[in-house]
Amino acid sequence: MADRETGVVILGSTGSIGRQAAEVIARMPGRLRAVALAAGRDGARLLEQVRRLRPEAVALEDPEAGRAWRPALEREGVKVLVGPGAAEELAAWPGATRVLSAITGAAGLRPTLAALRAGRDVALANKESLVAAGALVTRQAAAAGVRIIPVDSEHSALFQCLQGRSPDEVERLVLTASGGPFRGWPAEALHRVTPEQAVRHPNWSMGAKISVDSATLMNKGLEVIEARWLFGLPASRIGVVVHPQSVVHGLVELADGATVAVLAPPDMRQPIQYALCYPERGPRLVERLDLAAVGKLTFEEPDTRTFPCLDLAYRALEAGGTAPAVLNAANEEAVAAFLAGRLSFPGIAETVAAVLAAHRPRPVTGLDDVLEADAWARDQARARVAAGAPGPGLR
Amino acid sequence: MADRETGVVILGSTGSIGRQAAEVIARMPGRLRAVALAAGRDGARLLEQVRRLRPEAVALEDPEAGRAWRPALEREGVKVLVGPGAAEELAAWPGATRVLSAITGAAGLRPTLAALRAGRDVALANKESLVAAGALVTRQAAAAGVRIIPVDSEHSALFQCLQGRSPDEVERLVLTASGGPFRGWPAEALHRVTPEQAVRHPNWSMGAKISVDSATLMNKGLEVIEARWLFGLPASRIGVVVHPQSVVHGLVELADGATVAVLAPPDMRQPIQYALCYPERGPRLVERLDLAAVGKLTFEEPDTRTFPCLDLAYRALEAGGTAPAVLNAANEEAVAAFLAGRLSFPGIAETVAAVLAAHRPRPVTGLDDVLEADAWARDQARARVAAGAPGPGLR
Repeated sequence: MADRETGVVILGSTGSIGRQAAEVIARMPGRLRAVALAAGRDGARLLEQVRRLRPEAVALEDPEAGRAWRPALEREGVKVLVGPGAAEELAAWPGATRVLSAITGAAGLRPTLAALRAGRDVALANKESLVAAGALVTRQAAAAGVRIIPVDSEHSALFQCLQGRSPDEVERLVLTASGGPFRGWPAEALHRVTPEQAVRHPNWSMGAKISVDSATLMNKGLEVIEARWLFGLPASRIGVVVHPQSVVHGLVELADGATVAVLAPPDMRQPIQYALCYPERGPRLVERLDLAAVGKLTFEEPDTRTFPCLDLAYRALEAGGTAPAVLNAANEEAVAAFLAGRLSFPGIAETVAAVLAAHRPRPVTGLDDVLEADAWARDQARARVAAGAPGPGLR
Repeated sequence: MADRETGVVILGSTGSIGRQAAEVIARMPGRLRAVALAAGRDGARLLEQVRRLRPEAVALEDPEAGRAWRPALEREGVKVLVGPGAAEELAAWPGATRVLSAITGAAGLRPTLAALRAGRDVALANKESLVAAGALVTRQAAAAGVRIIPVDSEHSALFQCLQGRSPDEVERLVLTASGGPFRGWPAEALHRVTPEQAVRHPNWSMGAKISVDSATLMNKGLEVIEARWLFGLPASRIGVVVHPQSVVHGLVELADGATVAVLAPPDMRQPIQYALCYPERGPRLVERLDLAAVGKLTFEEPDTRTFPCLDLAYRALEAGGTAPAVLNAANEEAVAAFLAGRLSFPGIAETVAAVLAAHRPRPVTGLDDVLEADAWARDQARARVAAGAPGPGLR
């Protein structure tokens, strides 16, 4: 048991993961302490968190929100950073040994790299930084001698399965996928899907972007790429199985045919807590898993014909270099267009596929390669959305 | 990776576990070698095994079988021991570092203790030695500085789940039970159950005794007691869940609410191989687990009203001392009477309950305490069977 508190910086403290992390920290005084919180624009919630967690510093990336909330925040005696780059600055805040990287999307990349560069262990919820720049991020972690501890429930499960096992024991990783709200739907029906339907995830309470990714299966594709970098196995040794109950989060097939799995009720606080406390375990904050009460766990192959995004991700991973960054950026733009009613649900996969097909992958030697590919893919995706059919909201 | 072969003695080589162990060893030349094989009376199969595995020595416990088969065995150039105590002698055979203890029932106790005393790691399939004499067996292992590695699929799963975890991470162990062939049957229907029905286990190919134990749920009760000694947790932290598909073999609930499980197709060769190779893993000899093909895993509470043996085992464990030895011996006698058509299926639990209720547990300070309790319980059980109603075969 550690005698010392772990000082934590939360990047993205007002998002879904950040809020749950704030709760975990608040319930573990003496073990965890929030030293800094970075948010985008939700000053009201940030102020609440400041009052509850008493950090030393906060950041608001959005200049306007920053102007509006700075006085109130400063009255709480907290240092306030405002504007683009504020989260990145907070990532290296002294007094913290662990940074929770929970900013959604490619925007989380720079702060994640900054935390690693500053020698912090990173609890990584921002899957896009590994998807877009896995080589850079893992190289940075190795150079700084720090750890990347996954927060995604699936990767947390795999990480937990792998504890105490040697690499030669491991044959294959299997990520579970809920299958999303449209599992089993015929492809034709997907044309009429609305953003409201797509963000209604059956098991998890999550942000809009990741809920849509879960509905398209792109989320699982991004997770396959993430797993490749976290665990150093090739795509051929990372599989996906659909498991609608979201109780089994990940499985590791061992060399002799045994399979280890981690199960838990679908509650992100467990993997968040594990990532903040690792290598120890905190006290139980979540419900006990009662398998007899759950009754039934089902498993099926993913329907990649109806939901092509998973295969697109495998394709990007095999292409390598800048291809995953392009996949991710095109997907972010396509999802944004879908949420804004400017693209149909199947249009997301079509847009990503088209942008990926038009891309010639280059090796990633530095952040610029990633940012350039990202920008190119966004332009391409936006152009295709503008030229294409509108979403169902505008019909 | 080990460069050396592990020399193995198989005690009970012609039984179900022993035969599968022989196959595992035959398929891992250079890693595993059978140096000695002990059987009860099946000389024909022992001769086959001698020709295939080329051990240095064999034992036949049954004097008549020994007389009949000694010449043929000796012609193979193998040393032959015959008669009661032959297996015990072989347990300490030089040149072996691991002994697979796979003799069924209380008869496996002395050879298990002999192997531990001789400083051999014991791969333990004979659950009765831990049930009847857990304190003695674990004390002997500790004194000799050797390991007990479980072979039972459930305990192997728990043992695998626990690798690399500290005791303070562990909250509770959960054993899965298939529920046996009569799961869901009304209590009344059990009076007409025949031995043929009871030995037809839905998932596992096993011996008659353990198949009946599985049908009564006594097998799971014995396993709870076994788990108590193998893992050092009290009965209150060992649970049972019925899982008819026998794919999840054991679960460990961790302190923070995550649960680790080991899954595998129901094939004893995996846990046998793991126990022989531990701490390494051998190559895969069993089918891959394909969860999508399995489709569905179900879980339910055990029906302890219809199948009271599980509760009897918890009661014996709580009573402590000689009570588990009495439970086990009474059960062996009752199962034998049932298989011989001299006791009804519900009569097994009734007999065990009556003998257990009549017993005043004493502390176990040595083997004599166990053997005395065992003999007393057998007398009691036989007397009750003789006085009671006959089984369905004789009606």
